[in-house]
Amino acid sequence: MLSQRRQYLVDAVLERFFRVSQARAARIGAPYLALWQTLEKNTSGGKRLRPRMVMTVYESLGGTDFEAAAHVGAAFELLHTALIVHDDVIDRDFVRRGIPNVSGSYRDLAQTAGVSISTAEHRGLSVAVIAGDLALVGAGRLIEHSGTDDLTRSRLLDLLDESVFSSAAGELVDVDFSLSSAVPAVDEVLEMERLKTAVYSFEGTLQAGAVLAHAGEETITALGDFGRNVGVAYQIVDDVLGVFGDEATTGKTIVGDLREGKRTVLISYASRQPEWDSVARLVGKPDLSDREAAMVKAMLERSGARAYAEGLAHDFARHAWEGLAHRGIADALRDALEPIIATVLGRVQ
Amino acid sequence: MLSQRRQYLVDAVLERFFRVSQARAARIGAPYLALWQTLEKNTSGGKRLRPRMVMTVYESLGGTDFEAAAHVGAAFELLHTALIVHDDVIDRDFVRRGIPNVSGSYRDLAQTAGVSISTAEHRGLSVAVIAGDLALVGAGRLIEHSGTDDLTRSRLLDLLDESVFSSAAGELVDVDFSLSSAVPAVDEVLEMERLKTAVYSFEGTLQAGAVLAHAGEETITALGDFGRNVGVAYQIVDDVLGVFGDEATTGKTIVGDLREGKRTVLISYASRQPEWDSVARLVGKPDLSDREAAMVKAMLERSGARAYAEGLAHDFARHAWEGLAHRGIADALRDALEPIIATVLGRVQ
Repeated sequence: MLSQRRQYLVDAVLERFFRVSQARAARIGAPYLALWQTLEKNTSGGKRLRPRMVMTVYESLGGTDFEAAAHVGAAFELLHTALIVHDDVIDRDFVRRGIPNVSGSYRDLAQTAGVSISTAEHRGLSVAVIAGDLALVGAGRLIEHSGTDDLTRSRLLDLLDESVFSSAAGELVDVDFSLSSAVPAVDEVLEMERLKTAVYSFEGTLQAGAVLAHAGEETITALGDFGRNVGVAYQIVDDVLGVFGDEATTGKTIVGDLREGKRTVLISYASRQPEWDSVARLVGKPDLSDREAAMVKAMLERSGARAYAEGLAHDFARHAWEGLAHRGIADALRDALEPIIATVLGRVQ
Repeated sequence: MLSQRRQYLVDAVLERFFRVSQARAARIGAPYLALWQTLEKNTSGGKRLRPRMVMTVYESLGGTDFEAAAHVGAAFELLHTALIVHDDVIDRDFVRRGIPNVSGSYRDLAQTAGVSISTAEHRGLSVAVIAGDLALVGAGRLIEHSGTDDLTRSRLLDLLDESVFSSAAGELVDVDFSLSSAVPAVDEVLEMERLKTAVYSFEGTLQAGAVLAHAGEETITALGDFGRNVGVAYQIVDDVLGVFGDEATTGKTIVGDLREGKRTVLISYASRQPEWDSVARLVGKPDLSDREAAMVKAMLERSGARAYAEGLAHDFARHAWEGLAHRGIADALRDALEPIIATVLGRVQ
């Protein structure tokens, strides 16, 4: 969908950002340089989903300043890093995609130095708070340095702001979910996921591409609606993959979400079915065994939760697509958006 | 030093920022509104030191757009909020100036709801991570909305960026201090305090006032040097007050720094004196009694640590003042800066 060449541009912007930051950090000291290197490592290796959204829209709307688009894409990628680094602090997660995240890297270093595990974990989380702040500020800087005109820059910063604002709201809901033994309703889960992830990953990025291309208001609004719905579909699919996915492909351990008792559409739906009682005590069990995980998975199939979640993802994706029909969206843009839906849904097929 | 009228302008900008943010948050839900209200409470009540620096310089350099200056001052105040909220997460502090901070407010709410203390603390810290992010992004927004020309805005954002960059570096050093049983040398403590506090509180704010007033490069550089030195003096004084200050005036508990084993100039100097051995085991003792605290205080006097720290603060302040002499600084600006030194040093007299 996004040519390799565009992808390189985004990577080049991020590389330059980290090179400059690391040169500044090196003047302060080696430990600070190491922190910036760790942050860079935690920014690479992803699917570059968010830059892809920005650049796909920008290009299909006729934009030609790919250097500016790459800056905006890189800004959302760095925002993504900031949000997951802080999300991992909140979840006390020390691993992401099978490798130590910022907290994990610094926890491991401290442990090697011989401090207690609780002190080492605290050090890891502390450094991750700092690293997330740096990435968050960096996102704004990349937009500031994108070289666009004044009005466009201001609107892009509004979108970035709205992204952080929504994600923080979603994170707050999520924190409260994890505190309560009650399982939230499907609607509540969807609203949390919309706020926490869909806005900054899809709504914000797609609109940013359009704003940068000086698109009309109708197009920008239509892309917002599309992004919101696709984003929710994406998150539902992500949750299904978190339980039923192939570990090698997703980089997630299948038992992780179940051990954590993560509130997903799957769990919310299942908790309202008669089959729930047999496995309720296993969901959120920190030392869930593989055999127990298999029991929960079987229940999620049997109760219809998996089919429900997959159907819901399709509904959101179809709704996203149909929403474009009567909005005066240029053919080139529609053609460019179709693969996004295919990608989102294709992950479960 | 700063007229009450200017102070009101800064407060008005912050009030407007929180009013708009709270209206946005209310559309998402009551818990998010409550978070923004808590954040606002944690932004008020301070000495407004940083806005004072911005506006004092701006006014004495002949600036007349006080609405813009109030935005810039408010931005640094909000940055201060962000940094202390995250610093409190890192230090696992739940109280600031005698009242619950963001972490403390949310911990207390969770405890009232009946969860365990460790879960309640975790919830408090999680919400504080989110709240600090919002304040951090808000700081950039206030500069973006200050209404200045393009070049000035860009330079102000550079200063804000440098403030975060330095403070993060200082926080990292501080995290590593707290991990080691070795007491760092005085120079290391001073460098940490310069990075963590002096840059964003003094160097950055004074330079921001000058940039906003379109001052010449020489003035901006001179203010940077002045701010760095005054800022270090301020921090040394702050550490002395943390042990010898009047609790009613400072709002700090005297034993806090000693219980935490905070690495200050006082402790660094004392640790190299023969008197140290008698109290070394008390510094950093979590349940330090008042009687034990009195023993440490007596040692800090006896070993000359207090006199050394106060002398050092005076040296930095004098150095700051003398540094202005040959820099072509306008008389009005010099006259405006003198009370800053008096305020910094006056706190220990």
